[in-house]
Amino acid sequence: MSSPFTLHKKSSQCPARLGEVKTAHGVVQTPVFMPVGTQATVKGILPRDLHEFGAEIVLANTYHLYIRPGERLIKELGGLHKFMNWDKAILTDSGGFQIFSLRDLAKITEEGAAFRSHLDGAKLFLSPEDAVAVQEDLGTDIMMCLDTCIPYPASREETIKSTELTSRWAKRCRLAQKRETGQLLFGIIQGGMFEDLRARAVEDLLEIGFDGYAMGGLSVGEPKELMYEMTEKTTILMPDEFPKYLMGVGTPEDLVEGVYRGVDMFDCVMPTRNARNGMLFTSTGRLVIRNSRYKEDPAPLDEACSCYTCRNYSRAYLRHLFMAKEILSSNLNTIHNLHYYLGLMADIRKAIFEDRFVEFRKEFYAKRETG
Amino acid sequence: MSSPFTLHKKSSQCPARLGEVKTAHGVVQTPVFMPVGTQATVKGILPRDLHEFGAEIVLANTYHLYIRPGERLIKELGGLHKFMNWDKAILTDSGGFQIFSLRDLAKITEEGAAFRSHLDGAKLFLSPEDAVAVQEDLGTDIMMCLDTCIPYPASREETIKSTELTSRWAKRCRLAQKRETGQLLFGIIQGGMFEDLRARAVEDLLEIGFDGYAMGGLSVGEPKELMYEMTEKTTILMPDEFPKYLMGVGTPEDLVEGVYRGVDMFDCVMPTRNARNGMLFTSTGRLVIRNSRYKEDPAPLDEACSCYTCRNYSRAYLRHLFMAKEILSSNLNTIHNLHYYLGLMADIRKAIFEDRFVEFRKEFYAKRETG
Repeated sequence: MSSPFTLHKKSSQCPARLGEVKTAHGVVQTPVFMPVGTQATVKGILPRDLHEFGAEIVLANTYHLYIRPGERLIKELGGLHKFMNWDKAILTDSGGFQIFSLRDLAKITEEGAAFRSHLDGAKLFLSPEDAVAVQEDLGTDIMMCLDTCIPYPASREETIKSTELTSRWAKRCRLAQKRETGQLLFGIIQGGMFEDLRARAVEDLLEIGFDGYAMGGLSVGEPKELMYEMTEKTTILMPDEFPKYLMGVGTPEDLVEGVYRGVDMFDCVMPTRNARNGMLFTSTGRLVIRNSRYKEDPAPLDEACSCYTCRNYSRAYLRHLFMAKEILSSNLNTIHNLHYYLGLMADIRKAIFEDRFVEFRKEFYAKRETG
Repeated sequence: MSSPFTLHKKSSQCPARLGEVKTAHGVVQTPVFMPVGTQATVKGILPRDLHEFGAEIVLANTYHLYIRPGERLIKELGGLHKFMNWDKAILTDSGGFQIFSLRDLAKITEEGAAFRSHLDGAKLFLSPEDAVAVQEDLGTDIMMCLDTCIPYPASREETIKSTELTSRWAKRCRLAQKRETGQLLFGIIQGGMFEDLRARAVEDLLEIGFDGYAMGGLSVGEPKELMYEMTEKTTILMPDEFPKYLMGVGTPEDLVEGVYRGVDMFDCVMPTRNARNGMLFTSTGRLVIRNSRYKEDPAPLDEACSCYTCRNYSRAYLRHLFMAKEILSSNLNTIHNLHYYLGLMADIRKAIFEDRFVEFRKEFYAKRETG
């Protein structure tokens, strides 16, 4: 099984590693954070800004695009890259997590997921084969298998049932895939908070063989320490020759902790969603812009930041925009937060390259304590 | 009385003219359309895009900034240019029209306007002297006198009363102005739909002497033909040595008709507001993006347009963004509409320079009929 992953450097201090994932739309330097563009747009930002930050990959959502505007339309118009004006890599989440989030509106059977559209209540059905076909129509670079997400807490019995179904679906996804499209397909490791079930899930997926492996069902409500523990125990089990992707994670601290435990890929709505809600990430910690302490503050969001927002605007102006509910508030905050996230990942890669990631991690926390 | 206006060329065919207005933040080529940035941001667009389009001036609103965040704060932070990151010219509307729009919440007396904030109902008062002081604190390049807007229709008696008060307020504004700031002050011509009252208003203002003259109280509900007629009859009365500004106007057609009648300056929320509502201006007419005919349309908004939106996105994608209520919809539509408006003004200036504005006007309408 050939791998799209090339390892450049391994930390001598911890499982952190530097590498790259080769896709049909360019090489992605890892560890990487993927901005989330659910509905074929990363909310609040223009692609040219993402290019400027050096973004090499974004994530889009199969479930959302399947419902609106439909994968057929996107295919007819030349594929998702052209549709959304993004010529670098795109990873599509399979829709499993979104269907899971619908709760009572979804019913999972051996065959697939029956659910109702969150837009108009229309009855829809997505099988593992459908999920792959939709992603093939979208023409994305990395496709994800349809999985069944497990809530937290969940019984061992429930977890076994769901994990085994995910593995059977994974096999059907791999079989359904048209290999000639050059798209990569990643398997999703479930197993809940049970180490042995995670191990069994990894074994099942390895037997099928994928282009990369993702940890699903983490950051779903469990305590932070448990999430880190499960990440650590699962990455060890995952094959080092392939990319290791921790889905839906997380805070800046989570990224540092994930890399520390060997994770190569992350995605999360946090930087974009929090930007719209006025919560900004800085090198010294978080900042809630509506706080009245910023009312007359002439300083930029982050003195250490070189983004368009920090180069040109004061906290006082950004607070004004937020209070006045101006669109520019979302735009400028999103530029800052994504610049921060992508800058953090670039710093992480540099630290691994210089084999001082453990020191970097210490400094990262030290800055937050004094900030 | 020295004037900030320099005439470059007069049409041999009609009152259209090419010139420039010199301000403390650069020269503004006229005829000009000023994008509206009510709350210290042109809604939905970053200043760098306005720079890219060649915008030389934007408008902000005294009433809104007085209420939030307050002109004192903006002054403390270095003035409006620095606050909103715009180093070219800014014109501030006086607040008269906004107070007029509050209707029952405002009471006009000889002294000034008593009104309640539209945000929290707080009792506020703005005299002509206050309006100038606020604009001096903001540090804008062109200040407008506080005026009293006249509704349509209005009786002759009502119009006389309001117009005379506006002229008395204009005198108080001019007297209150600290000349050493280098800010320009424009007078506002009221007079409703009565030609002789417009003439009297012009006389009153000329006696005081301003850096420019604006027509107020047009495009307030009167028939289009009447608006054009009043514009034509008023611009003739205005001194040719000074800029002639038609406030709050208008559609692309209104700009062409205004220039044809000798107007140098325009402002309107239309291109930005309509962008957010999915109404786009193109060289062949208007386009409502939510229309289902654009669902699968791979064409750009306007084949003749070179803006970022038209270079990179299909109508189908823009419709998707609009239906999905994505922020990017407002951003991309606003980029297009303002690019269209500023491009139209550049074309108008070129046509006057080449002394073929009357032909240009014919072609402008011909394109719309065949489009």
